Amino acid sequence: MAHNGNGETRETGFDGIGEYEQVQNQKNMEFKEEEVSLERVFMSHEVLPWRKQLTLRALAVSLCLSILFSFIVMKLNLTTGIIPSLNVSAGLLGFFFVKTWTKLLDKSGMLRQPFTRQENTVIQTCVVASSGIAFSGGFGSYLLGMSELVANQTSDKSDIKNPSLGWIIGFLFVVSFIGLFSVLPLRKIMIINFKLTYPSGSATANLINSFHTPEGARLAKKQVKVLGKFFTFSFLWGLFQWFYTAADGCGFESFPSLGLRAYQYRFYFDFSTIYVGVGMICPYIINVSVLLGGILSWGIMWPLIEKKEGQWYPPNLHNTDMNGIQGYKVFISIALILGDGLYNLFKVLGHTLTGMYKQIRDRPRENVLPVVDQNSSSSPTQISYDDHRRIQFFLKDQIPTYFAVGGYVAIAAVSIITVPHIFPQLKWYHILVIYLFAPSLAFCNAYGCGLTDWSLASTYGKLAIFAIGAWAGASHGGVLAGLAACGVMMNIVSTASDLMQDFKTGYLTLSSPRSMFVSQIIGTTMGCVISPCVFWVFYKAFKGLGKPQSEYPAPYAIVFRNMALLGVEGFSSLPEHCLLLCYIFFGSAIVINLIKDLMGKKRGWFIPLPMAMAIPFYIGPYFAIDMCVGSLILFVWEKMNKAKADAFAPAVASGLICGDGIWTLPASILAIFGVKPPICMKFLSRTTNARVDAFLGS
Amino acid sequence: MAHNGNGETRETGFDGIGEYEQVQNQKNMEFKEEEVSLERVFMSHEVLPWRKQLTLRALAVSLCLSILFSFIVMKLNLTTGIIPSLNVSAGLLGFFFVKTWTKLLDKSGMLRQPFTRQENTVIQTCVVASSGIAFSGGFGSYLLGMSELVANQTSDKSDIKNPSLGWIIGFLFVVSFIGLFSVLPLRKIMIINFKLTYPSGSATANLINSFHTPEGARLAKKQVKVLGKFFTFSFLWGLFQWFYTAADGCGFESFPSLGLRAYQYRFYFDFSTIYVGVGMICPYIINVSVLLGGILSWGIMWPLIEKKEGQWYPPNLHNTDMNGIQGYKVFISIALILGDGLYNLFKVLGHTLTGMYKQIRDRPRENVLPVVDQNSSSSPTQISYDDHRRIQFFLKDQIPTYFAVGGYVAIAAVSIITVPHIFPQLKWYHILVIYLFAPSLAFCNAYGCGLTDWSLASTYGKLAIFAIGAWAGASHGGVLAGLAACGVMMNIVSTASDLMQDFKTGYLTLSSPRSMFVSQIIGTTMGCVISPCVFWVFYKAFKGLGKPQSEYPAPYAIVFRNMALLGVEGFSSLPEHCLLLCYIFFGSAIVINLIKDLMGKKRGWFIPLPMAMAIPFYIGPYFAIDMCVGSLILFVWEKMNKAKADAFAPAVASGLICGDGIWTLPASILAIFGVKPPICMKFLSRTTNARVDAFLGS
Repeated sequence: MAHNGNGETRETGFDGIGEYEQVQNQKNMEFKEEEVSLERVFMSHEVLPWRKQLTLRALAVSLCLSILFSFIVMKLNLTTGIIPSLNVSAGLLGFFFVKTWTKLLDKSGMLRQPFTRQENTVIQTCVVASSGIAFSGGFGSYLLGMSELVANQTSDKSDIKNPSLGWIIGFLFVVSFIGLFSVLPLRKIMIINFKLTYPSGSATANLINSFHTPEGARLAKKQVKVLGKFFTFSFLWGLFQWFYTAADGCGFESFPSLGLRAYQYRFYFDFSTIYVGVGMICPYIINVSVLLGGILSWGIMWPLIEKKEGQWYPPNLHNTDMNGIQGYKVFISIALILGDGLYNLFKVLGHTLTGMYKQIRDRPRENVLPVVDQNSSSSPTQISYDDHRRIQFFLKDQIPTYFAVGGYVAIAAVSIITVPHIFPQLKWYHILVIYLFAPSLAFCNAYGCGLTDWSLASTYGKLAIFAIGAWAGASHGGVLAGLAACGVMMNIVSTASDLMQDFKTGYLTLSSPRSMFVSQIIGTTMGCVISPCVFWVFYKAFKGLGKPQSEYPAPYAIVFRNMALLGVEGFSSLPEHCLLLCYIFFGSAIVINLIKDLMGKKRGWFIPLPMAMAIPFYIGPYFAIDMCVGSLILFVWEKMNKAKADAFAPAVASGLICGDGIWTLPASILAIFGVKPPICMKFLSRTTNARVDAFLGS
Repeated sequence: MAHNGNGETRETGFDGIGEYEQVQNQKNMEFKEEEVSLERVFMSHEVLPWRKQLTLRALAVSLCLSILFSFIVMKLNLTTGIIPSLNVSAGLLGFFFVKTWTKLLDKSGMLRQPFTRQENTVIQTCVVASSGIAFSGGFGSYLLGMSELVANQTSDKSDIKNPSLGWIIGFLFVVSFIGLFSVLPLRKIMIINFKLTYPSGSATANLINSFHTPEGARLAKKQVKVLGKFFTFSFLWGLFQWFYTAADGCGFESFPSLGLRAYQYRFYFDFSTIYVGVGMICPYIINVSVLLGGILSWGIMWPLIEKKEGQWYPPNLHNTDMNGIQGYKVFISIALILGDGLYNLFKVLGHTLTGMYKQIRDRPRENVLPVVDQNSSSSPTQISYDDHRRIQFFLKDQIPTYFAVGGYVAIAAVSIITVPHIFPQLKWYHILVIYLFAPSLAFCNAYGCGLTDWSLASTYGKLAIFAIGAWAGASHGGVLAGLAACGVMMNIVSTASDLMQDFKTGYLTLSSPRSMFVSQIIGTTMGCVISPCVFWVFYKAFKGLGKPQSEYPAPYAIVFRNMALLGVEGFSSLPEHCLLLCYIFFGSAIVINLIKDLMGKKRGWFIPLPMAMAIPFYIGPYFAIDMCVGSLILFVWEKMNKAKADAFAPAVASGLICGDGIWTLPASILAIFGVKPPICMKFLSRTTNARVDAFLGS
């Protein structure tokens, strides 16, 4: 599951999704116990050599799905930055496409190679690697934060680099692959010796395994059908909505469903099926946290602070001016994000170190053989046949260490030479230092992710912003240097944990590490081309990209840029009392996390997540309402029919997400060709309406 | 089933509803065959004396439901005039209320009398009689046609009488009861000797019988639950919509869901659940006919005629001017309605006469005994136990003929004295003549209705308009005399057939004719007070009542008034070519009906009904789209699960109708108290929107 290496949103999204997938995981574990041995079920299935796992059809399907998911991830990136796990949909759709294809071939008698779970894993890996770039490429965060449009909303307008297809693709190519090499030699230690869980990776593997049993295939078929239905509905709903959005503030996305006053403070249901779907996938606590954050900020704090206009901050500022109310919104959310991020960084680092210490203490031998390990804490029944077979296949295809080290050094060299040409503000020695530290950070992240399912990529990225930004200094373009460094760092750390997740998935589906690695390389290559192109479509099609209150506010772009500014300039530019509020929220984030951890997972389930709470601080709580609608639907469904909800809710959610997400493809094409919707659905107060009617009548 | 005596719309609505209920009827027949004898199932149930069938709780429930259904019928009256059968909902809800009440009492040990099917029939009869007044009172047709507001839209503006609570209640009291007495003595002949079918009445009886079997009660409970769900949804949807309708042309009811150009010609889905429900109850052919009529008129004819502006009719007229395009709309629909009405009048009269001739030829004895009739065409097994018991109970409680005759004469005398005081234009001799002819017309209608399920009340009413209007003459207020005469006639004819339907229902549920009659009297009394009050609420709350394109256009008000004008003034006032078009459509209506009848019910199912086609001619096809949405839902549902759709579609439809209908109660109260919705959801073309944005921005 390559998807969970992707920054803040991933983290918040992922704690929960991790939990969710753990639940699924547990269910699959029960299945395993029932069946005694999963691999015995698959015994009759021959495992093909790694080259044969990488079929052309798998790569073709991966390419299609990569484009689909890149659009979805990009849309999510540019609207709120909350990205749920799309692995279930990727798994389902991959299965569906290849299965349909092989069935057709089978009927015509032309099928040469049956569809295997290894092939399915290859698709999964490739798609997730590719669409992962859409996130770690920073199109909604650091990369867009460099642009003029975002810079104009901050106090520093000089240090800019506008997006352009050429340099983005170049930059991604030189920074995206190095992460794959950084932890490659450690795969055996982490998967076999340390037996790391990788909840998402395991869950994906179980999903794929279950698809390829006859019972699972039947269920998968039904799920695909449900997914297809909701995909169609969601797509058509997007199409229908489009007709009524002739201008800004028109259409269902501006529907004041809770009244005009609530709408003014961005409390409304905006009828976007994508976030209803996201709400159905994310666990309840995330949705509630987001809503709570929205109420706290837009319901209480901003209205109160607005009353201090003229006292706390100068009156009559433009609404994007960082010296005004906007400053409070952005910096308080940064404080929350940093507080939560740092707490979790130290927590995961602590886990990593103690975990490693225990592992090393308990397992002095480095080279375990594929036999039962006496010192292992797991019961001997579990290692047995399944693990034996898995270890056997995992160790069959080796990747030499010199290849990994050589690759790392070569790419680092290219990167050190190339990147300063793209960003003159980022010097070669900055990059060198990043690449010296990166492998250990990448290992930390991959290890922590294996334990907790949390990837802290964007936290490492933020550290890079502050460190490199401060080092470069304001006079030498520290803001841009910081943002670029963030990109370099995030890409390594994120792809490293993704790769390890995929190895775990591959381990559990008997896929060869080589085919996993090659698939990851191919996926990353696809992503480096597809993601910038998809971004380019959005960038050209929707002119308001990055503007607050537009259709695509890309909230993290301004957050990341302001973090870079903070790192370079310090706190001097903040409006009055803002720094104090930031300290309070920074501290609260740590305290809330501490309380949650001290109470334990069971008793502390109701404590909200500060990271999730921070998101609506800037963009408003409307999407939180969408997500809570998703939660509500799921809740009612679970009350009515738990089994059915468990089996089909992910399919429904995926359908809703994919349909709305893919609608942005034709929508942006229409926008590029200047085709505008014909009607504006406008919402006016009664008095304004009377004025407008008088105006139109005359 | 007292509901089907209510004019045009009833007729169109009823042919189909008759078919639908016949289907239900057939199903119940199957049930009967299976069980051999229905009455044996009920053998253990004691049939209480008639006074005990009229319980206080039944009347209390009837009162509540009467108010509910009066609101619904009034809303339907004033929007399109299409009124579906509400008997199923009345039956369900009556059962639900009393059952809940008796269950509560039973638990607390205070239940003195169990809930019987006779009591249920009493509720049914009372509610339907009461809400029937909401239709035959002419609030959407002749009565509103007298008002100044409607008169101002026609060429004759002088002959008016504005609605006022006092005279309406008085008028209804003197004309509504006489119909009950007119056919009372013939009940035995029509129910027992002639064995008339009364499809709707029989279906209602079967529904009630089935509710009181244990199996039926379970199903009824489920149906009530479904009804409740959709009632709530529909009510809340009405509430939600309300907030966005700050002014005319705002809100979902003006949603150009098919584009602005289609909206201009009133092709749009207006999100009104009431007509979706109506569409689910009405058979497909009615919905298709309505849509076809809409396409023919608003899609083809009106746009073509509009091009002749300045040639066929003077340019720049006000859009309600009868000399302009509005004239074509109104008079062509009148031509269709009259053509269809007259055709069916002669058809039903023909049936009545041949039917009576056969009955009299075959059954020379007048007083049949409760034994098998040798000459009967029905098989001897069917008469057996069930019929024996039914005839026994039907003949047990007699109503003396002198009571009926005396009642008729007394009420006629009061009416002849009183009505001319209300309408000075209608002389006492006009009324006397009406009352001399009325009993035979009432008998014809009751007999025809028993055979075909069609009540032609409004056709008889229209005959009265022309006859009395021409007799009185233009100089003596012929228009108002005609409309008032229509009211007198419609009320007699309609209540007569209603009463006979109820006797049939009572016969099949072993209810006493006396309790039926008393219930009908009580229901009519309720209706005479409730209906005018409900109308008054609408009249006071919604100022645009009767104006075209308003929320309540009441299309038949202007149609009826124009018919009266036609009768008085002849064709001189029609715009150019309008008379020719009227002749063509009048002829077409007859030809279409003839073709349909010649092809037979089975092969001619696809021939549209001219009466249904005429409705959108004036008000536009938007409600036809709602109804077709209802049809579509039902169609898909039937394809997916026929059994479930058959069991629950009527409940869903009733829920949708009742919820939206009852929402008008709070909506009108809000309107009376001057509470206006806060928001206008407006739909503007892109260019207009740009102008408005510029205007609001400045």
